[in-house]
Amino acid sequence: MSKERIDPVSAVAEKDSVGWTHVAKLRLIPPEKPLKLELGGRLAPIDIEYETYGKLSQDKDNVVLVAHALSGDAHAAGWDADATENFRSWRLNKPGWWDSIIGPGKAIDTDRFFVICPNCVGSCYGSTGPSSINPETNKPYGMSFPMVTVEDWTEIEGRLLDHLGIKKIHAIIGGSLGGQQAIEFALRFPDRVEKSIVLAATPRLSAQGLAFNAVGRYCIMNDPNFNEGNYYEGAKPDKGLAAARMLAHITYLSDEGMHDKFGRKLWDKTDFEGGFGIEFAVESYLDHQGRAFVNRFDANSYLYITRAMDYYDAAERWGGGDLVKACSKIKCDMMIVSFSSDWLYPPHECKQFSLAITANRHPVTYVNVPSPYGHDSFLVETESVTRLVKPFLESKKESE
Amino acid sequence: MSKERIDPVSAVAEKDSVGWTHVAKLRLIPPEKPLKLELGGRLAPIDIEYETYGKLSQDKDNVVLVAHALSGDAHAAGWDADATENFRSWRLNKPGWWDSIIGPGKAIDTDRFFVICPNCVGSCYGSTGPSSINPETNKPYGMSFPMVTVEDWTEIEGRLLDHLGIKKIHAIIGGSLGGQQAIEFALRFPDRVEKSIVLAATPRLSAQGLAFNAVGRYCIMNDPNFNEGNYYEGAKPDKGLAAARMLAHITYLSDEGMHDKFGRKLWDKTDFEGGFGIEFAVESYLDHQGRAFVNRFDANSYLYITRAMDYYDAAERWGGGDLVKACSKIKCDMMIVSFSSDWLYPPHECKQFSLAITANRHPVTYVNVPSPYGHDSFLVETESVTRLVKPFLESKKESE
Repeated sequence: MSKERIDPVSAVAEKDSVGWTHVAKLRLIPPEKPLKLELGGRLAPIDIEYETYGKLSQDKDNVVLVAHALSGDAHAAGWDADATENFRSWRLNKPGWWDSIIGPGKAIDTDRFFVICPNCVGSCYGSTGPSSINPETNKPYGMSFPMVTVEDWTEIEGRLLDHLGIKKIHAIIGGSLGGQQAIEFALRFPDRVEKSIVLAATPRLSAQGLAFNAVGRYCIMNDPNFNEGNYYEGAKPDKGLAAARMLAHITYLSDEGMHDKFGRKLWDKTDFEGGFGIEFAVESYLDHQGRAFVNRFDANSYLYITRAMDYYDAAERWGGGDLVKACSKIKCDMMIVSFSSDWLYPPHECKQFSLAITANRHPVTYVNVPSPYGHDSFLVETESVTRLVKPFLESKKESE
Repeated sequence: MSKERIDPVSAVAEKDSVGWTHVAKLRLIPPEKPLKLELGGRLAPIDIEYETYGKLSQDKDNVVLVAHALSGDAHAAGWDADATENFRSWRLNKPGWWDSIIGPGKAIDTDRFFVICPNCVGSCYGSTGPSSINPETNKPYGMSFPMVTVEDWTEIEGRLLDHLGIKKIHAIIGGSLGGQQAIEFALRFPDRVEKSIVLAATPRLSAQGLAFNAVGRYCIMNDPNFNEGNYYEGAKPDKGLAAARMLAHITYLSDEGMHDKFGRKLWDKTDFEGGFGIEFAVESYLDHQGRAFVNRFDANSYLYITRAMDYYDAAERWGGGDLVKACSKIKCDMMIVSFSSDWLYPPHECKQFSLAITANRHPVTYVNVPSPYGHDSFLVETESVTRLVKPFLESKKESE
């Protein structure tokens, strides 16, 4: 396997199904120049892990920025069956989370576009987060990590582009919390982006969404192993994190989808045992999701990222509460895709967002895709997403 | 205050807004004759706490049985501001949970009907449950309590009527889990009931409902104080029970209702503090609900009653999986009321139930009440419920 070092922290380039994948870890913000954060904190240094797919054109005008959701990472596409050498191997040796969408000839065509997917600050997948070492204490930050927001992530994405010498991107695309980054990028950098594609996301989370996040965090923070976030040297708050994940998974599916997939089917038995173990198939599914998650995610990152999800409100940030006013800042072509059974970021709010853009006499393509897969649809409705995203990405910019 | 003893365990009769309320605790099943339970266990003795309102007619033909939901109790109506003498006082000195519906001239008119509301076995409000003393060990049952089901509750309701010398009731009515008892009573005792009124309930819980219950129980059973249900002498699994309750409360409201009530309003502040305390009004609401619940409910009861909710499946029990076949057993007049924004027992499943009754050429009154209050609607939509229930209850039996 060929490897080349491309930046000071660490980087490998590996041949895989996407073509060449660059996995890079970059010191974007040096210790001496902290980044001022949206809610008042400062953070330095900031390392960013990101992957790229495809080839940057000579004019650097073929960049598509991909933003991941809550538990996502920089590994959006491709895979390397031999990647067993470092901490990233367990992620690299399976297909990226959006491999169905990103690749040669796919919706985001790597023969055409240079795709960049950075891991968010606050996460636990290579970029600086609560589990990183705080240089002031030489211990993991834990809850001394500053609050980061969707606005901060977008600011950092801008800095990453600066670092790579990219003035303007062809497009930004993301689903869920990634979709909120696509919204924020269009508002914050109207002159740096030609197209923004927002999947399964709205300009702000609903009261119900806030409530689900609150219960998830309650479970984590009341786990006896949580220890105010200082659990890195001992037992982790696995039970609390698992409960939060199980709960979240219900919100990623839909009532209809759960009915089709599980209904009231029993798990591995023909009759009730009459106890509190796993009786129904849906219980087994949730149990598995909870267990798997604690092995791959950091509880503090879960707290910080769900809080960022809570705080984001494009109307407040850019329009003093007025969504139409906020949308007057948008200059790029907008595509908004909702999914009929998504109740976390429901279609009626996506439609409202589209109308707020239209109210500014700015063009927007809004499609509500019929799907039983709930919020997860943006990850699984490959055919619909491809049919919508590919021509939109490959067309010339429409709006002025 | 006048008191009269009406049964061997304990009973008081108190004058309140309903007229005369009898609060009784009755040893329904004696130690020597255990009740055989649906899922195979046996239980004895069984004490039942129940309240009655109104006056039993000479022909004993004016009985309306009221069945409570998950966290309800026998105190459905009336109140006694002076009731400070015994363990029930904190419940008795506030209006019963359905006081808006039950009383003189109200939907369930106590000038006309004799209303009986028993507390379910497995609960913690006077009837035998996991917190009761197991006579074999002289300690609380905890998780050695046998599994009880909606079928068992209905069987016990039948035994209570036997004890009171009531052969046939005019009606049974309940919402949510109480509505499932109204369904089960109509199926199990077709000749003992003239009218069954089912509010916000379906013949079985959906996969999504099973999933929410599973997460709630996970929180309780993984609380370090849970101790396999043996926590009565020490610290209780309050954090787990609070999490379960917070989660459940989201399912009792609706997205629309939460938006109207809380939206993204901040709590007691004008700007984000940028932390993990209570920031949003909806977080304060959930926090309050969680805290209040642990002071009034037993975690083991929560486990048992949610499991009963999971297990109930009228189609399986009476039709081998075929709901239409199950409904062929129904002889009484049926009224089914769903609420448009109830997503725990959704309208489309209530409608399906109505159609299954109709498929047997049996009359049914089905109404879907437009309401933003979600599953809680059956408790708060007093005007709609009254307008539907009162004439239905007061009419002669229609069906053969």
